[in-house]
Amino acid sequence: MVVVMAAEATASEVDHVVNVVQEAGGEAFVSRGEFAAIIGLSGDIERFAATLNLPSLPGVADVVRTSVPYKLVSREHRHERSVIRVAGVPIGPDTLTVIAGPCAVETPEQTLAAARMARAAGASLLRGGAFKQRTSPYAFQGLGEVGLKILADVRAETGLPVVTEVVDQRDVDLVTTYADMLQVGARNMQNFPLLQAVGAAGKPVMLKRGLSATIEEWLMAAEYIAQRGNLDIVLCERGIRTFESATRNTLDISAVPIAQRLSHLPVIVDPSHSGGRRDLVLPLSRAAIAVGADGIIVDVHPHPETARCDGPQALIEQDLRELASVAHHLSPLVGRTLTPAPAPGPR
Amino acid sequence: MVVVMAAEATASEVDHVVNVVQEAGGEAFVSRGEFAAIIGLSGDIERFAATLNLPSLPGVADVVRTSVPYKLVSREHRHERSVIRVAGVPIGPDTLTVIAGPCAVETPEQTLAAARMARAAGASLLRGGAFKQRTSPYAFQGLGEVGLKILADVRAETGLPVVTEVVDQRDVDLVTTYADMLQVGARNMQNFPLLQAVGAAGKPVMLKRGLSATIEEWLMAAEYIAQRGNLDIVLCERGIRTFESATRNTLDISAVPIAQRLSHLPVIVDPSHSGGRRDLVLPLSRAAIAVGADGIIVDVHPHPETARCDGPQALIEQDLRELASVAHHLSPLVGRTLTPAPAPGPR
Amino acid sequence: MVVVMAAEATASEVDHVVNVVQEAGGEAFVSRGEFAAIIGLSGDIERFAATLNLPSLPGVADVVRTSVPYKLVSREHRHERSVIRVAGVPIGPDTLTVIAGPCAVETPEQTLAAARMARAAGASLLRGGAFKQRTSPYAFQGLGEVGLKILADVRAETGLPVVTEVVDQRDVDLVTTYADMLQVGARNMQNFPLLQAVGAAGKPVMLKRGLSATIEEWLMAAEYIAQRGNLDIVLCERGIRTFESATRNTLDISAVPIAQRLSHLPVIVDPSHSGGRRDLVLPLSRAAIAVGADGIIVDVHPHPETARCDGPQALIEQDLRELASVAHHLSPLVGRTLTPAPAPGPR
Amino acid sequence: MVVVMAAEATASEVDHVVNVVQEAGGEAFVSRGEFAAIIGLSGDIERFAATLNLPSLPGVADVVRTSVPYKLVSREHRHERSVIRVAGVPIGPDTLTVIAGPCAVETPEQTLAAARMARAAGASLLRGGAFKQRTSPYAFQGLGEVGLKILADVRAETGLPVVTEVVDQRDVDLVTTYADMLQVGARNMQNFPLLQAVGAAGKPVMLKRGLSATIEEWLMAAEYIAQRGNLDIVLCERGIRTFESATRNTLDISAVPIAQRLSHLPVIVDPSHSGGRRDLVLPLSRAAIAVGADGIIVDVHPHPETARCDGPQALIEQDLRELASVAHHLSPLVGRTLTPAPAPGPR
Repeated sequence: MVVVMAAEATASEVDHVVNVVQEAGGEAFVSRGEFAAIIGLSGDIERFAATLNLPSLPGVADVVRTSVPYKLVSREHRHERSVIRVAGVPIGPDTLTVIAGPCAVETPEQTLAAARMARAAGASLLRGGAFKQRTSPYAFQGLGEVGLKILADVRAETGLPVVTEVVDQRDVDLVTTYADMLQVGARNMQNFPLLQAVGAAGKPVMLKRGLSATIEEWLMAAEYIAQRGNLDIVLCERGIRTFESATRNTLDISAVPIAQRLSHLPVIVDPSHSGGRRDLVLPLSRAAIAVGADGIIVDVHPHPETARCDGPQALIEQDLRELASVAHHLSPLVGRTLTPAPAPGPR
Repeated sequence: MVVVMAAEATASEVDHVVNVVQEAGGEAFVSRGEFAAIIGLSGDIERFAATLNLPSLPGVADVVRTSVPYKLVSREHRHERSVIRVAGVPIGPDTLTVIAGPCAVETPEQTLAAARMARAAGASLLRGGAFKQRTSPYAFQGLGEVGLKILADVRAETGLPVVTEVVDQRDVDLVTTYADMLQVGARNMQNFPLLQAVGAAGKPVMLKRGLSATIEEWLMAAEYIAQRGNLDIVLCERGIRTFESATRNTLDISAVPIAQRLSHLPVIVDPSHSGGRRDLVLPLSRAAIAVGADGIIVDVHPHPETARCDGPQALIEQDLRELASVAHHLSPLVGRTLTPAPAPGPR
Repeated sequence: MVVVMAAEATASEVDHVVNVVQEAGGEAFVSRGEFAAIIGLSGDIERFAATLNLPSLPGVADVVRTSVPYKLVSREHRHERSVIRVAGVPIGPDTLTVIAGPCAVETPEQTLAAARMARAAGASLLRGGAFKQRTSPYAFQGLGEVGLKILADVRAETGLPVVTEVVDQRDVDLVTTYADMLQVGARNMQNFPLLQAVGAAGKPVMLKRGLSATIEEWLMAAEYIAQRGNLDIVLCERGIRTFESATRNTLDISAVPIAQRLSHLPVIVDPSHSGGRRDLVLPLSRAAIAVGADGIIVDVHPHPETARCDGPQALIEQDLRELASVAHHLSPLVGRTLTPAPAPGPR
Repeated sequence: MVVVMAAEATASEVDHVVNVVQEAGGEAFVSRGEFAAIIGLSGDIERFAATLNLPSLPGVADVVRTSVPYKLVSREHRHERSVIRVAGVPIGPDTLTVIAGPCAVETPEQTLAAARMARAAGASLLRGGAFKQRTSPYAFQGLGEVGLKILADVRAETGLPVVTEVVDQRDVDLVTTYADMLQVGARNMQNFPLLQAVGAAGKPVMLKRGLSATIEEWLMAAEYIAQRGNLDIVLCERGIRTFESATRNTLDISAVPIAQRLSHLPVIVDPSHSGGRRDLVLPLSRAAIAVGADGIIVDVHPHPETARCDGPQALIEQDLRELASVAHHLSPLVGRTLTPAPAPGPR
């Protein structure tokens, strides 16, 4: 951490900063330039940043961080990239894992049909929402526990482990009973009590990036989960909010290699929700795999025109074979193998 | 609601849309242009939007809403602008209400000193955080119930009703016991279980705009609260996230008149958190009052350089008289009177 | 300027940076912390930034500027805020100057009527476009020299000096013959040949902020003009592009005090183009004056419903008196007087 | 085009809109719903949009376009995707064309070395800037005609046709003499006189997307060029401005398939300038090819640490073989062949 003093800062203001740091148990090294003094800090930087309030001290022009504010999820904490296992299915640097399923669980038939579509598309994990976060209180909010039971039944029949969202911290125990992986949605990325609850639940967590979250804030949110003892976290890039309205959100494809460099956690991409358009799902899936993502998560639906949630972006039958082919052929070019689906039937 | 058909849509695709709408109990009026057909809808538009999935029907190019998706908080539901009373202190169209206090409650002395500063600045309500939402798990998270008790003590001594944030839905009952108004922070604007919990708590609510929320999403979030029977909601503009880094956020001053036109709810401005700089608080306060805000909420702190949260933006002693003067002199020019502080001492 | 070395940088990499700076004639001060070394630079920082390519040197983690990259337009170059005179009409820290007129010059009658509306609204300068920058090649591009002659005739009759846009550097001489102040539009803010041409034209220049320009880039664009010997520059904030679609652009009201602190140049606000809605012009004008702007520039039109450009945002007769009243009553509260219009008739 | 009337619009206001459209030679079809009337328009929509000012008419709530505002560059004008030839080198739907070279031409040796690197990386076209657009007037502005001559000499030696930027419309003739393709930079995307000048120059044009331009505005800028009779235009996505600061700009990878669907023009990607970081160039190149781009344009430099422009993002020797391998192996998966470089030596 570097404290940059203002050009007009006095020597006693510089000394004051040094004293404040030293009293807090840190070290401060002053470098006086022709125009301004610079103070390099070492010690428990996180604590200083959180408590010392250096930007408010007289004469201080700027405070520049030279280290990242997260620890457990950083590459400094763990040099090798992590492999997360979801009921045995790996997500990590050597594989490409496809997760697919309906945005919302509606009926047993729809969910089973969608799971079979998911397998056909190369998926090894089933996604499906029983609890939905909707902008409007008048929109479909999900089937709740009924939906979770449907997912468990479909898992028993197809063998695909289940990834499902938890929206309310009071539901964490319930969802954990049924799910193989808990999903935290974009709007909840900074719902800190929820992050702490899923961190303590004992199941892997998929953490979607918030609509307007920087990569650093995303990793800080993961740190909240990690702090509760759970490092089985998968990051999911799903588009950020920008001025462009041709897509629902702007897929930040660069975030994948950047997050992988800063953190040891796997990073996957959601090409369905970022674009919000079916015709973009295949091109964006190709881009995600090619850029080096550890997986993709896509919406499929047997009857998108009657879907109760996000129908316009769901893949349909004719797209599935192409997605499977893309996943199969592109993976080797980025040094990966497509993660095979578990055998069908009860485990 | 208007369904715009693609140029290449067939007559049977147009008929299909009409049938879908009529089967759902709505009316559909077809208008054929030279290049495209347009279908106007009437009936229970909210339900159609949430369930019919019109954008997925074959031949549909676009679906355009011609009505707002919120109801209870709209001007159509209540034509006159509302006055919300916080322990008797009004926030509404005829007054300018100043809310001030420390970002975080730290000690009884600091909170009492800040409350006295708040009064000197023209405030009639005391703000102060006992539960804090922090991006970093390593940052100060607030004193919790101890902080709430300090706020209650300071209220008893100064007479200023208390506005304080609730971060976790499990704390809603506890915070409601102490607070006169519950605050929902920007990061929780779409934490729907929390919105529903504060909607049922029986106290007025201040709802901050999310960092990347459109005005429509903000009003939809208010609708979640209103649906639980609580229309005592005050909207608070606190800056949106943009590319400009000279300020922490970009205060969207235009949002004030727009939200006031769309909704009957009062709209106030937070000039402290939007700018993140003390030197902007007074200019932005003047702008907020002049644009027609129903109030402002500002950070004050007796010793900003030791503040445990957001010290750099807190007003200090020398700014207070100027803020009071600004509030006093500008209010009449926009047809308002400065809301007087309640008498000191226990109520 | 501070060079922050990576944690893993070697001593010889640190020495290399020092050598590169010293060979370029600068001084470099090394400060070694527990985790990383920091190098403070002094000397001709602008030249180093433009030519040394420090971020590419081995072992460099980051390069942080501690000084502003513009010179002539900075407060360091001129401590006092400047007053710019447009044919004698001042724009500066003690006055509030209203500029008004039609977005585009269409006919002599329309322009004269608009100029009379401008006077009624308290304006002392007439705006009007003869050359228009339009997103679509199929939109009205302005009357060209015919429009300039109309503006000159209306100036002769009303006494109001003329502010008009120049879109093409080949037209600078022509426009300079007729105009009292040259306007550079938002889309041309980084059209550097045009900036240099208006910088050499010998007339004051109004420089609109680009849609996605940071405040620093805006001041750098002004520096291009200033470098040609022309410091008679007025900055105009007119909204930035964000995700919010309720307004055409998001007026960055905070940019006014920030630009005034960084630069000695006057800063005015365009409440018409930022909002793009007539009903926002008065509230945003009040906000602009209250925040401390040195002036405002507004669209007026005698018949907005037939305007060939931006009719929806033009003020109409009934708004004028209110704008004049706002400008008159708010100015004293921010220590200013409303700039009076020059006497009518030929000068 | 659809005019949506306000709920409270009167019958005579509806009639007035119809009359205005009919007087302009158009047709207007009224559809009255339960809450609002909708008016569908047909005829010369572009002219109506540019001149009728429909949003200002009394009773009008909204005007919705149902057709695109560009013509010549649209898929409706030309159904098949175009192939543009640059001195014989194709850019189009069946090939992947790599363009590479130094950001700025500095010396004959540096340019020749960079051109050899470009060939090694699989490039068939040489890029290099002789005229540079720089945010700061104190930064290196390019060698001008000297640089153009160096490019021509290097072309003679290596056989690679030359793509180079033109910054000032006065230089269009000069640059056209030397260049095989003219580049218009992001900051000039809406410099309409420059667009018109390059449209008349008789050479293919590469049009970079503006930092804050929507895809529609980008295509409208291409329409300005096309209007001058030149349809040999290649669109280049190079990142948009967002809140994320980990990259210089946010590469909008979705813009590639969207622009290809809306327009017949080829679309390429610049992975160097969008990310601004060397370590992102290869991943983003892979993503660009996989998403279906018609080409990529990358910075290479023999000595990035001494580059006078954008050194931090230039590829170096060790990256070249990998880029060539990526281009070679990924192309067939998206149905393309890597465009071969022309034979070395004078043509």
